[in-house]
Amino acid sequence: MGFERIASEVVYEGKIATVHRDTFRYDDDGEEAVREFVRHPGSVAMIAHDGERVYLVRQPREPVNEQEVLELPAGKLDAEGESPLETGKRELAEEIGKSAADWELLKTYYASVGFTDERIWMYLATGLEDAEAEADENERIEVEAVPLADLDALIERVVDAKTLVGLMLLRTRLQAKG
Amino acid sequence: MGFERIASEVVYEGKIATVHRDTFRYDDDGEEAVREFVRHPGSVAMIAHDGERVYLVRQPREPVNEQEVLELPAGKLDAEGESPLETGKRELAEEIGKSAADWELLKTYYASVGFTDERIWMYLATGLEDAEAEADENERIEVEAVPLADLDALIERVVDAKTLVGLMLLRTRLQAKG
Repeated sequence: MGFERIASEVVYEGKIATVHRDTFRYDDDGEEAVREFVRHPGSVAMIAHDGERVYLVRQPREPVNEQEVLELPAGKLDAEGESPLETGKRELAEEIGKSAADWELLKTYYASVGFTDERIWMYLATGLEDAEAEADENERIEVEAVPLADLDALIERVVDAKTLVGLMLLRTRLQAKG
Repeated sequence: MGFERIASEVVYEGKIATVHRDTFRYDDDGEEAVREFVRHPGSVAMIAHDGERVYLVRQPREPVNEQEVLELPAGKLDAEGESPLETGKRELAEEIGKSAADWELLKTYYASVGFTDERIWMYLATGLEDAEAEADENERIEVEAVPLADLDALIERVVDAKTLVGLMLLRTRLQAKG
Protein backbone atom coordinates (compact mmCIF):
# COMPACT_ATOMS: atom_id res chain seq x y z
CA MET A 1 0.00 0.00 0.00
CA GLY A 2 2.95 2.39 -0.41
CA PHE A 3 3.03 5.75 -2.17
CA GLU A 4 5.51 8.41 -3.12
CA ARG A 5 5.12 12.16 -3.40
CA ILE A 6 5.81 13.17 -7.01
CA ALA A 7 4.85 16.86 -6.90
CA SER A 8 4.21 19.54 -4.28
CA GLU A 9 2.51 22.89 -4.68
CA VAL A 10 1.86 25.59 -2.08
CA VAL A 11 -1.58 27.01 -2.87
CA TYR A 12 -1.88 29.29 0.17
CA GLU A 13 0.73 30.58 2.56
CA GLY A 14 -0.52 32.38 5.64
CA LYS A 15 0.55 33.09 9.16
CA ILE A 16 -0.39 29.70 10.65
CA ALA A 17 -1.77 27.71 7.76
CA THR A 18 0.21 26.76 4.68
CA VAL A 19 -2.00 24.81 2.34
CA HIS A 20 -0.36 22.24 0.08
CA ARG A 21 -1.76 20.52 -2.97
CA ASP A 22 0.57 17.59 -3.52
CA THR A 23 0.48 14.72 -6.00
CA PHE A 24 1.10 11.14 -4.88
CA ARG A 25 1.63 7.94 -6.87
CA TYR A 26 0.63 4.59 -5.39
CA ASP A 27 3.07 1.68 -5.74
CA ASP A 28 0.51 -1.05 -6.27
CA ASP A 29 -1.36 0.29 -9.29
CA GLY A 30 0.60 3.37 -10.38
CA GLU A 31 -2.48 5.52 -9.87
CA GLU A 32 -1.93 9.20 -9.06
CA ALA A 33 -3.98 11.35 -6.70
CA VAL A 34 -3.89 14.99 -5.68
CA ARG A 35 -4.29 15.65 -1.96
CA GLU A 36 -4.81 18.99 -0.30
CA PHE A 37 -3.63 19.40 3.28
CA VAL A 38 -2.42 21.98 5.78
CA ARG A 39 1.21 22.13 6.85
CA HIS A 40 1.73 22.86 10.55
CA PRO A 41 5.04 23.20 12.43
CA GLY A 42 3.92 20.78 15.16
CA SER A 43 3.13 21.32 18.83
CA VAL A 44 4.34 20.38 22.25
CA ALA A 45 2.05 19.82 25.24
CA MET A 46 2.90 19.28 28.89
CA ILE A 47 1.24 17.22 31.60
CA ALA A 48 2.67 19.14 34.54
CA HIS A 49 1.82 17.91 38.03
CA ASP A 50 3.35 18.03 41.50
CA GLY A 51 1.80 14.82 42.84
CA GLU A 52 -1.16 16.77 44.21
CA ARG A 53 -2.39 18.93 41.35
CA VAL A 54 -2.14 19.10 37.57
CA TYR A 55 -1.63 22.54 36.03
CA LEU A 56 -3.92 23.64 33.24
CA VAL A 57 -4.58 26.92 31.46
CA ARG A 58 -7.83 28.59 30.47
CA GLN A 59 -7.89 30.87 27.46
CA PRO A 60 -10.22 32.19 24.78
CA ARG A 61 -10.01 30.14 21.57
CA GLU A 62 -11.26 32.15 18.66
CA PRO A 63 -11.03 29.41 15.97
CA VAL A 64 -13.64 27.28 17.76
CA ASN A 65 -15.58 30.32 19.00
CA GLU A 66 -15.23 29.26 22.65
CA GLN A 67 -14.83 32.01 25.24
CA GLU A 68 -12.69 29.76 27.44
CA VAL A 69 -11.05 26.42 26.75
CA LEU A 70 -9.34 24.44 29.52
CA GLU A 71 -6.10 22.97 28.18
CA LEU A 72 -2.73 21.52 28.99
CA PRO A 73 0.02 24.13 28.67
CA ALA A 74 1.25 23.87 25.09
CA GLY A 75 2.88 25.71 22.25
CA LYS A 76 3.73 25.60 18.59
CA LEU A 77 7.18 24.51 17.40
CA ASP A 78 7.69 27.74 15.54
CA ALA A 79 10.96 29.00 17.05
CA GLU A 80 13.84 28.44 14.63
CA GLY A 81 16.33 25.82 15.83
CA GLU A 82 14.46 25.01 19.05
CA SER A 83 13.83 21.32 19.87
CA PRO A 84 10.43 20.08 21.13
CA LEU A 85 11.90 19.71 24.63
CA GLU A 86 13.29 23.26 24.59
CA THR A 87 9.97 24.63 23.37
CA GLY A 88 8.23 22.69 26.12
CA LYS A 89 10.48 24.18 28.81
CA ARG A 90 9.99 27.71 27.48
CA GLU A 91 6.22 27.37 27.15
CA LEU A 92 5.84 25.83 30.61
CA ALA A 93 7.56 28.84 32.17
CA GLU A 94 5.60 31.31 30.05
CA GLU A 95 2.19 29.74 30.58
CA ILE A 96 2.21 28.48 34.18
CA GLY A 97 5.36 30.09 35.62
CA LYS A 98 7.01 26.76 36.45
CA SER A 99 10.12 24.85 35.56
CA ALA A 100 10.29 21.04 35.75
CA ALA A 101 13.29 18.94 36.82
CA ASP A 102 12.02 15.77 35.11
CA TRP A 103 10.79 15.51 31.53
CA GLU A 104 9.52 12.30 29.97
CA LEU A 105 8.23 12.05 26.40
CA LEU A 106 5.10 9.92 26.77
CA LYS A 107 3.89 9.93 23.18
CA THR A 108 4.19 11.57 19.79
CA TYR A 109 1.17 11.45 17.50
CA TYR A 110 -0.69 13.29 14.73
CA ALA A 111 -3.53 15.70 15.50
CA SER A 112 -5.73 14.98 12.45
CA VAL A 113 -4.14 12.72 9.81
CA GLY A 114 -6.78 13.40 7.15
CA PHE A 115 -6.01 17.04 6.67
CA THR A 116 -2.90 18.30 8.46
CA ASP A 117 0.61 17.08 9.26
CA GLU A 118 0.45 18.62 12.75
CA ARG A 119 2.39 16.36 15.10
CA ILE A 120 2.24 16.60 18.88
CA TRP A 121 4.99 15.84 21.38
CA MET A 122 3.35 14.97 24.73
CA TYR A 123 5.60 15.36 27.76
CA LEU A 124 5.14 14.47 31.40
CA ALA A 125 6.76 17.29 33.40
CA THR A 126 7.37 16.71 37.12
CA GLY A 127 9.66 18.02 39.82
CA LEU A 128 8.01 21.42 39.45
CA GLU A 129 9.46 24.62 40.84
CA ASP A 130 8.48 28.24 40.45
CA ALA A 131 10.31 29.68 37.46
CA GLU A 132 11.77 33.12 37.10
CA ALA A 133 8.96 35.32 35.86
CA GLU A 134 9.05 35.24 32.08
CA ALA A 135 7.27 37.79 29.96
CA ASP A 136 4.27 36.10 28.40
CA GLU A 137 3.02 37.53 25.14
CA ASN A 138 -0.55 36.49 25.94
CA GLU A 139 -2.07 38.04 29.03
CA ARG A 140 -5.40 36.28 28.41
CA ILE A 141 -4.16 32.98 29.83
CA GLU A 142 -5.27 31.99 33.35
CA VAL A 143 -3.72 29.11 35.27
CA GLU A 144 -5.96 26.52 36.93
CA ALA A 145 -4.49 23.85 39.21
CA VAL A 146 -6.84 20.86 39.53
CA PRO A 147 -6.43 18.22 42.27
CA LEU A 148 -5.40 14.83 40.87
CA ALA A 149 -8.21 13.35 42.97
CA ASP A 150 -10.61 15.08 40.57
CA LEU A 151 -9.00 13.69 37.41
CA ASP A 152 -12.03 11.67 36.28
CA ALA A 153 -14.36 14.66 36.52
CA LEU A 154 -11.76 16.84 34.83
CA ILE A 155 -11.52 14.46 31.85
CA GLU A 156 -15.31 14.62 31.51
CA ARG A 157 -15.15 18.43 31.23
CA VAL A 158 -12.33 18.63 28.71
CA VAL A 159 -13.18 19.42 25.06
CA ASP A 160 -9.65 19.81 23.65
CA ALA A 161 -8.05 16.76 22.01
CA LYS A 162 -4.47 17.11 23.27
CA THR A 163 -5.74 17.73 26.81
CA LEU A 164 -7.93 14.62 26.63
CA VAL A 165 -5.01 12.52 25.39
CA GLY A 166 -2.62 13.88 28.00
CA LEU A 167 -4.97 13.54 30.97
CA MET A 168 -5.99 10.01 29.98
CA LEU A 169 -2.30 9.06 29.68
CA LEU A 170 -1.77 10.58 33.13
CA ARG A 171 -4.67 8.58 34.57
CA THR A 172 -3.19 5.35 33.21
CA ARG A 173 0.19 6.28 34.67
CA LEU A 174 -1.26 7.05 38.11
CA GLN A 175 -3.33 3.84 38.11
CA ALA A 176 -0.21 1.80 37.31
CA LYS A 177 1.58 3.35 40.29
CA GLY A 178 -1.41 3.28 42.64
CA MET B 1 -12.47 36.92 29.19
CA GLY B 2 -15.13 37.03 26.45
CA PHE B 3 -14.78 38.10 22.85
CA GLU B 4 -16.95 38.69 19.82
CA ARG B 5 -16.24 38.16 16.15
CA ILE B 6 -16.51 41.51 14.39
CA ALA B 7 -15.28 40.59 10.90
CA SER B 8 -14.69 37.44 8.86
CA GLU B 9 -12.72 37.03 5.66
CA VAL B 10 -12.12 33.88 3.60
CA VAL B 11 -8.52 34.10 2.37
CA TYR B 12 -8.33 30.65 0.77
CA GLU B 13 -11.07 28.25 -0.27
CA GLY B 14 -9.96 24.78 -1.28
CA LYS B 15 -11.29 21.27 -1.38
CA ILE B 16 -10.76 20.45 2.29
CA ALA B 17 -9.27 23.57 3.80
CA THR B 18 -11.02 26.91 3.94
CA VAL B 19 -8.76 29.45 5.58
CA HIS B 20 -10.38 32.30 7.50
CA ARG B 21 -8.83 35.52 8.73
CA ASP B 22 -11.31 36.83 11.25
CA THR B 23 -11.21 39.81 13.57
CA PHE B 24 -12.21 39.50 17.22
CA ARG B 25 -12.79 42.14 19.89
CA TYR B 26 -12.20 41.31 23.57
CA ASP B 27 -14.81 42.41 26.08
CA ASP B 28 -12.43 43.30 28.91
CA ASP B 29 -10.17 45.82 27.17
CA GLY B 30 -11.78 46.41 23.77
CA GLU B 31 -8.61 45.24 22.06
CA GLU B 32 -8.95 43.76 18.58
CA ALA B 33 -6.98 40.85 17.15
CA VAL B 34 -6.87 39.13 13.77
CA ARG B 35 -6.79 35.32 13.90
CA GLU B 36 -6.16 32.98 11.00
CA PHE B 37 -7.64 29.49 11.21
CA VAL B 38 -8.88 26.63 9.06
CA ARG B 39 -12.55 25.82 8.80
CA HIS B 40 -13.37 22.12 8.76
CA PRO B 41 -16.82 20.47 8.48
CA GLY B 42 -16.14 18.19 11.48
CA SER B 43 -15.66 14.45 11.75
CA VAL B 44 -17.26 11.38 13.24
CA ALA B 45 -15.29 8.42 14.59
CA MET B 46 -16.53 5.03 15.76
CA ILE B 47 -15.28 2.69 18.46
CA ALA B 48 -16.84 -0.48 17.02
CA HIS B 49 -16.40 -3.69 18.99
CA ASP B 50 -18.23 -7.00 19.41
CA GLY B 51 -17.06 -7.77 22.95
CA GLU B 52 -14.09 -9.72 21.59
CA ARG B 53 -12.45 -7.46 19.05
CA VAL B 54 -12.34 -3.79 18.11
CA TYR B 55 -12.43 -2.96 14.40
CA LEU B 56 -9.82 -0.62 12.98
CA VAL B 57 -8.75 0.38 9.49
CA ARG B 58 -5.31 0.76 7.98
CA GLN B 59 -4.79 3.23 5.17
CA PRO B 60 -2.13 5.40 3.56
CA ARG B 61 -2.19 8.98 4.92
CA GLU B 62 -0.52 11.32 2.49
CA PRO B 63 -0.72 14.52 4.61
CA VAL B 64 1.53 13.01 7.29
CA ASN B 65 3.59 11.03 4.74
CA GLU B 66 2.81 7.71 6.46
CA GLN B 67 2.39 4.65 4.26
CA GLU B 68 -0.12 3.12 6.68
CA VAL B 69 -1.92 4.58 9.66
CA LEU B 70 -4.03 2.43 11.98
CA GLU B 71 -7.23 4.28 12.86
CA LEU B 72 -10.77 4.04 14.10
CA PRO B 73 -13.27 4.04 11.25
CA ALA B 74 -14.17 7.67 10.68
CA GLY B 75 -15.39 10.20 8.17
CA LYS B 76 -15.90 13.86 7.47
CA LEU B 77 -19.29 15.51 7.98
CA ASP B 78 -19.37 16.70 4.40
CA ALA B 79 -22.66 15.21 3.18
CA GLU B 80 -25.34 17.91 2.99
CA GLY B 81 -28.12 17.47 5.54
CA GLU B 82 -26.63 14.36 7.15
CA SER B 83 -26.38 14.25 10.97
CA PRO B 84 -23.21 13.02 12.74
CA LEU B 85 -25.01 9.78 13.64
CA GLU B 86 -26.14 9.21 10.04
CA THR B 87 -22.61 9.88 8.78
CA GLY B 88 -21.29 7.43 11.36
CA LYS B 89 -23.65 4.68 10.23
CA ARG B 90 -22.78 5.23 6.58
CA GLU B 91 -19.04 5.32 7.19
CA LEU B 92 -19.09 2.24 9.41
CA ALA B 93 -20.73 0.22 6.62
CA GLU B 94 -18.39 1.64 3.98
CA GLU B 95 -15.19 1.19 5.94
CA ILE B 96 -15.61 -2.07 7.85
CA GLY B 97 -18.75 -3.56 6.29
CA LYS B 98 -20.73 -3.56 9.56
CA SER B 99 -23.88 -2.07 10.96
CA ALA B 100 -24.36 -1.47 14.68
CA ALA B 101 -27.59 -1.84 16.68
CA ASP B 102 -26.42 0.36 19.55
CA TRP B 103 -24.89 3.81 19.23
CA GLU B 104 -23.73 5.90 22.16
CA LEU B 105 -22.13 9.34 21.83
CA LEU B 106 -19.21 9.17 24.28
CA LYS B 107 -17.67 12.58 23.67
CA THR B 108 -17.53 15.57 21.37
CA TYR B 109 -14.33 17.61 21.31
CA TYR B 110 -12.09 19.80 19.15
CA ALA B 111 -9.15 18.34 17.20
CA SER B 112 -6.75 21.28 17.51
CA VAL B 113 -8.23 24.44 19.06
CA GLY B 114 -5.32 26.69 18.11
CA PHE B 115 -5.77 26.48 14.38
CA THR B 116 -8.92 24.71 13.23
CA ASP B 117 -12.57 24.46 14.24
CA GLU B 118 -12.64 20.71 13.45
CA ARG B 119 -14.96 19.04 15.94
CA ILE B 120 -15.13 15.29 16.46
CA TRP B 121 -18.15 13.22 17.46
CA MET B 122 -16.89 10.00 19.10
CA TYR B 123 -19.40 7.14 19.11
CA LEU B 124 -19.35 3.72 20.73
CA ALA B 125 -20.93 1.32 18.22
CA THR B 126 -21.92 -2.14 19.46
CA GLY B 127 -24.35 -4.87 18.50
CA LEU B 128 -22.41 -5.33 15.26
CA GLU B 129 -23.73 -7.24 12.26
CA ASP B 130 -22.46 -7.66 8.74
CA ALA B 131 -23.87 -4.90 6.59
CA GLU B 132 -25.02 -5.11 3.00
CA ALA B 133 -21.91 -4.57 0.93
CA GLU B 134 -21.69 -0.85 0.22
CA ALA B 135 -19.51 0.53 -2.50
CA ASP B 136 -16.56 2.23 -0.87
CA GLU B 137 -14.90 4.98 -2.80
CA ASN B 138 -11.51 4.14 -1.31
CA GLU B 139 -10.16 0.68 -2.06
CA ARG B 140 -6.94 1.37 -0.16
CA ILE B 141 -8.56 0.77 3.22
CA GLU B 142 -7.86 -2.55 4.99
CA VAL B 143 -9.79 -3.72 8.04
CA GLU B 144 -7.91 -4.97 11.11
CA ALA B 145 -9.79 -6.54 14.02
CA VAL B 146 -7.73 -6.41 17.22
CA PRO B 147 -8.58 -8.53 20.30
CA LEU B 148 -9.74 -6.39 23.23
CA ALA B 149 -7.25 -8.34 25.35
CA ASP B 150 -4.51 -6.55 23.40
CA LEU B 151 -5.93 -3.06 23.99
CA ASP B 152 -2.96 -1.77 26.03
CA ALA B 153 -0.43 -2.80 23.38
CA LEU B 154 -2.70 -1.38 20.67
CA ILE B 155 -2.84 2.02 22.39
CA GLU B 156 0.98 2.04 22.52
CA ARG B 157 1.12 1.55 18.72
CA VAL B 158 -1.42 4.18 17.77
CA VAL B 159 -0.18 7.52 16.37
CA ASP B 160 -3.52 9.08 15.37
CA ALA B 161 -5.19 11.41 17.88
CA LYS B 162 -8.85 10.40 17.45
CA THR B 163 -7.86 6.72 17.67
CA LEU B 164 -5.90 7.36 20.87
CA VAL B 165 -8.85 9.22 22.39
CA GLY B 166 -11.36 6.57 21.36
CA LEU B 167 -9.34 3.57 22.51
CA MET B 168 -8.50 5.17 25.84
CA LEU B 169 -12.21 5.95 26.37
CA LEU B 170 -12.94 2.30 25.51
CA ARG B 171 -10.35 1.09 28.03
CA THR B 172 -11.93 3.20 30.77
CA ARG B 173 -15.35 1.83 29.84
CA LEU B 174 -14.18 -1.79 29.91
CA GLN B 175 -12.36 -1.28 33.24
CA ALA B 176 -15.54 0.15 34.79
CA LYS B 177 -17.49 -2.93 33.69
CA GLY B 178 -14.77 -5.47 34.48
